[in-house]
Amino acid sequence: MKSNLMSDISPVLTRIDNQLPEALGRLFELLRIQSISTDPAFKEDCRKAGSWLVDQLIEIGFEASLRDTDGHPMVVGHHDGPQGAPHLLFYGHYDVQPVDPLELWHQPPFEPVLKELEGGQKQIHARGAADDKGQLMTFVEACRAWKQETGGLPCKITILFEGEEESGSPSLVPFFEANGEELTCDLALVCDTGMWDIETPAVNIALRGMVTEDFVIRAASRDLHSGHYGGAAANPIHILSKILADLHDESGRITLDGFYDDVEDVPENIRKQWDGLGFSASDFLGEIGLSMPAGEANRSVLEQIWSRPTAEVNGIIGGYTGDGFKTVIAAEASAKVSFRLVSNMDPEKVHVAFVKHVESHLPEDCTVEFKHHEGSPAIQLDHTLPQLNKAAAVLEEEWGKPAAMIAMGGSVPIVGEFKRMLGMDSLMVGFGLDNDCIHSPNEKYELSSFHKGTRSWARILAALAE
Amino acid sequence: MKSNLMSDISPVLTRIDNQLPEALGRLFELLRIQSISTDPAFKEDCRKAGSWLVDQLIEIGFEASLRDTDGHPMVVGHHDGPQGAPHLLFYGHYDVQPVDPLELWHQPPFEPVLKELEGGQKQIHARGAADDKGQLMTFVEACRAWKQETGGLPCKITILFEGEEESGSPSLVPFFEANGEELTCDLALVCDTGMWDIETPAVNIALRGMVTEDFVIRAASRDLHSGHYGGAAANPIHILSKILADLHDESGRITLDGFYDDVEDVPENIRKQWDGLGFSASDFLGEIGLSMPAGEANRSVLEQIWSRPTAEVNGIIGGYTGDGFKTVIAAEASAKVSFRLVSNMDPEKVHVAFVKHVESHLPEDCTVEFKHHEGSPAIQLDHTLPQLNKAAAVLEEEWGKPAAMIAMGGSVPIVGEFKRMLGMDSLMVGFGLDNDCIHSPNEKYELSSFHKGTRSWARILAALAE
Repeated sequence: MKSNLMSDISPVLTRIDNQLPEALGRLFELLRIQSISTDPAFKEDCRKAGSWLVDQLIEIGFEASLRDTDGHPMVVGHHDGPQGAPHLLFYGHYDVQPVDPLELWHQPPFEPVLKELEGGQKQIHARGAADDKGQLMTFVEACRAWKQETGGLPCKITILFEGEEESGSPSLVPFFEANGEELTCDLALVCDTGMWDIETPAVNIALRGMVTEDFVIRAASRDLHSGHYGGAAANPIHILSKILADLHDESGRITLDGFYDDVEDVPENIRKQWDGLGFSASDFLGEIGLSMPAGEANRSVLEQIWSRPTAEVNGIIGGYTGDGFKTVIAAEASAKVSFRLVSNMDPEKVHVAFVKHVESHLPEDCTVEFKHHEGSPAIQLDHTLPQLNKAAAVLEEEWGKPAAMIAMGGSVPIVGEFKRMLGMDSLMVGFGLDNDCIHSPNEKYELSSFHKGTRSWARILAALAE
Repeated sequence: MKSNLMSDISPVLTRIDNQLPEALGRLFELLRIQSISTDPAFKEDCRKAGSWLVDQLIEIGFEASLRDTDGHPMVVGHHDGPQGAPHLLFYGHYDVQPVDPLELWHQPPFEPVLKELEGGQKQIHARGAADDKGQLMTFVEACRAWKQETGGLPCKITILFEGEEESGSPSLVPFFEANGEELTCDLALVCDTGMWDIETPAVNIALRGMVTEDFVIRAASRDLHSGHYGGAAANPIHILSKILADLHDESGRITLDGFYDDVEDVPENIRKQWDGLGFSASDFLGEIGLSMPAGEANRSVLEQIWSRPTAEVNGIIGGYTGDGFKTVIAAEASAKVSFRLVSNMDPEKVHVAFVKHVESHLPEDCTVEFKHHEGSPAIQLDHTLPQLNKAAAVLEEEWGKPAAMIAMGGSVPIVGEFKRMLGMDSLMVGFGLDNDCIHSPNEKYELSSFHKGTRSWARILAALAE
């Protein structure tokens, strides 16, 4: 059985190898489009990225179109498969994170380059190289090679690319509500995840959920001179600092009321598997210039990032922040805070507890405005899903190492919506690495991730067809 | 004696009244110059403001010039007086604060307008109207009227205008070192202060000192994705929040080691005088939209702003602060903090205690950079200075109310340097009001402050000549 499969797909793999330069050229075209979804200034660029993908899918043989939403458009494509073959939905996103601080980039973020390191390792450098343009193109290129080599695809395939993943996916639920039947397949494939390391593939079996909070503390009706009012007037930066400082206690635990009520400990067998992965906390932190785990005391770093809920302040601003000094007491100060959720934590309950925490710190003559918040629960996949094991087997064939069954610290909220709204499980396979600098300056994607990732999808499509 | 003086100066006062429109036109010319000293982009504008003042002084009959420094230039002017008359040094500054947030201004900050309120009260609106261009021009116009009316000035006068008051006056000490003899007079006149209220003049007898701190906390070597690293990697905004939250204890006292060691309580007689001023804490706070004193428990608001040391965070920034959300853990976060000092507090001791406070909050794998700090001690004038009482007497003649002998929350560091380097006491008289919005959008100066302030200086010059 295995040898039959190999003989079937080896021409597809060879074609992928031979056409790598052209595939890279196409990826670079997509990376040049400045599709930053959170910034309204780039609205047209987002649409342009979606249109470009529609054209690619049509070129391969998909029936594809750009579908308008209240925000950035969706790309939807359909391609038939052999009678009886499963119907798969592949999901990715064409929008990217903002690029600031721009001065830290070694080259312009939307002018992709292929860099060769000492020793010959090659990397694709650009905003979106790993998150998620490079990743989604591995699947598109796998389909292209299958189609060109065999005239068809081994499974029936629907593709969904959204343009709002980096801005909270506000159009996703309405789009699923309106197009549920069209989008419901046997299984979803989600590529917005990573490998264990540069040589070891992985399948993600758990994702943390997320709650984001964007809020402003207001005190005086205008900015004040600290010489006239200092010591008497409320300073919103002081209030905000106290709110944020009090989010964690001295042991690193989050202080919100009832925060840990629905958090379950990792089962012993999974914890043992993790212990066997050879994860080095000092290497993990050392790679980013740190040496001391900053999270909950008495939890391993792997637990901290994979299985424990967190609270992180992602941004803060207030008062005078330019060059020089201004002895001002600001009228307002604001912050953005995100919580990662695990197990059965309820996003709404976390939001309510956070609001209560903020309000309990507020003097009577000050106010808070909660400008925006989003929430998604954590995901835990069924370990016994047969497609999961099929994918793991061919990943091992491609990479020469067993696929790690890992949890993931980040959130991929769509996986929850696939299950909740469309009843679909998700196979989460991706080829990103921890040091890809996604959401940071100098984002990159390994050329090996792009090349062997494409080959991996070609193999997974064959494996799932059986 | 009094009637002689009145008969001498009434033509000068009449001339001031008659020439008010022209005086206002000259002030508007100065207000149109964008002399923001903290921002290098406005370097040429600062020089332009200095040159404009030199031209004005020469026109009046001063021997005046622009004197280069390592920063913005000084304006120095000299005018002789009658034999035996005292030699006075008048100090002001031609630089202004930055204007952000620009969107809160009702008109462009450098396009001055005269606004008439209901009831006929008139105000000059522009950046620098009160701090300090409007104030310094009261003195210039008083000299002009004296000179035009009598052909001379009642005292020998040296004028010093600097262009770096809003950016810590870095060139002042070197300039005094190089030109000490030229600048040493019998008494300094400093106008960078305020009235008690719109009808009641004041002489300032105490000023708080100041220490400013501008620092950055650094953690990871780059911005991180909070999904990958959150809960394990140090977040510099968390560290900074804790540093700032811990600056005050629950009773509002500042926690720095030894901070209150050199703080003296206000003498009983001064406190009684303050109690008699009819100060209303609820009006003071109500005018800025607040109702609860935020400072030290068990201290009156007047004590909090006049006689107690303070710590205020004037600015904070870190992470993603744009529209939308970015789940980033920033590599660094920074803040600006200022301390107001009283009594004999030593600025250097405060700086050392602050550094220790910050460092005690720092995990071993994080760093702090103290980018810049400045310090000046508090000032307490001798109540028995004869010139102080002469000035108070003529202020009462002009305004019809006794001059309040007040302390001031803000800092005027030059007063300390005049005493320390040139051995001069300073007579601090100014016509600003608490609601002038200096350092804020919509800065204004009452037309009555400008007009009667000019008349006040004309009277003070006559009084000090005797």
